[in-house]
Amino acid sequence: MSGELPGWVVREAKAEDLPAIVRLLADDALGATREQIDAAPDPSYYRAFEEMQRHPGCHFLVAELNGELVGCMQLVIIPGLSHRGARRAQIESVRIARSWRGHGLGTRLTEAALQMARDQGCILAQLTTHRQRTDAHRFYEQQGFAFTHLGMKKRLRTD
Amino acid sequence: MSGELPGWVVREAKAEDLPAIVRLLADDALGATREQIDAAPDPSYYRAFEEMQRHPGCHFLVAELNGELVGCMQLVIIPGLSHRGARRAQIESVRIARSWRGHGLGTRLTEAALQMARDQGCILAQLTTHRQRTDAHRFYEQQGFAFTHLGMKKRLRTD
Repeated sequence: MSGELPGWVVREAKAEDLPAIVRLLADDALGATREQIDAAPDPSYYRAFEEMQRHPGCHFLVAELNGELVGCMQLVIIPGLSHRGARRAQIESVRIARSWRGHGLGTRLTEAALQMARDQGCILAQLTTHRQRTDAHRFYEQQGFAFTHLGMKKRLRTD
Repeated sequence: MSGELPGWVVREAKAEDLPAIVRLLADDALGATREQIDAAPDPSYYRAFEEMQRHPGCHFLVAELNGELVGCMQLVIIPGLSHRGARRAQIESVRIARSWRGHGLGTRLTEAALQMARDQGCILAQLTTHRQRTDAHRFYEQQGFAFTHLGMKKRLRTD
């Protein structure tokens, strides 16, 4: 576990965080092609956020450093039957603000999320990371994740 | 889409399906090491099933052929912020009964699940499949899935 970092907070996102979150999601080589951020986030983000509030396993976490939103991560607690009826934690939409990368904040955010997953009784955490994101592969290996599976995706809509 | 198959039904699982489902999950090289099935499934499966009922995005599907339970799949609809607030469908715990493999039932079950995901507005479907399961990799490629991501996992408990 990393040491104390004054001003560091990981908390559940609020609707008023959405402009900052969408900027984070878009500030990325792959994300830039698929997010929308002009003066304000598209209403679709607010609708999705409301839907997430109604799903008991859905947590959208934000990391703040001295009041600045510097990272985000979606953590989804998924109950299931495999592994004797175990819960698993799925990680999605991880970002650290470009100007704050390389300072260990991703490690801190991941540690906070994995502790939350343990506290909720999950036996494993899982994620997929694009084959192009070689920095991410190294990062998650350092966090104790192993590349044991292929991550396969299929688009269901073309819009 | 495959043609009609008389006696084929895909439906949401009920608690009374659990013994047959757990036998399916265990009847597998990897599953055999991590499932428990004696005279009856461990109570942990029933607790997990009840928890899944309370999660609006959690669907545990079973496939029947002439009243026999021959396949299962968990389909989780995950709301999120990425991709402009898109929903995605996560597939877990896919099994076809050993005596029924090679008859196209996996394709039918996958098609039914993907249609359900489309009907619920998902823009993509995703799954991870163990690196050892080379038959599964070919199968999912045939279903239109692409190996674009690494699937990374981390155990959170050792029991």
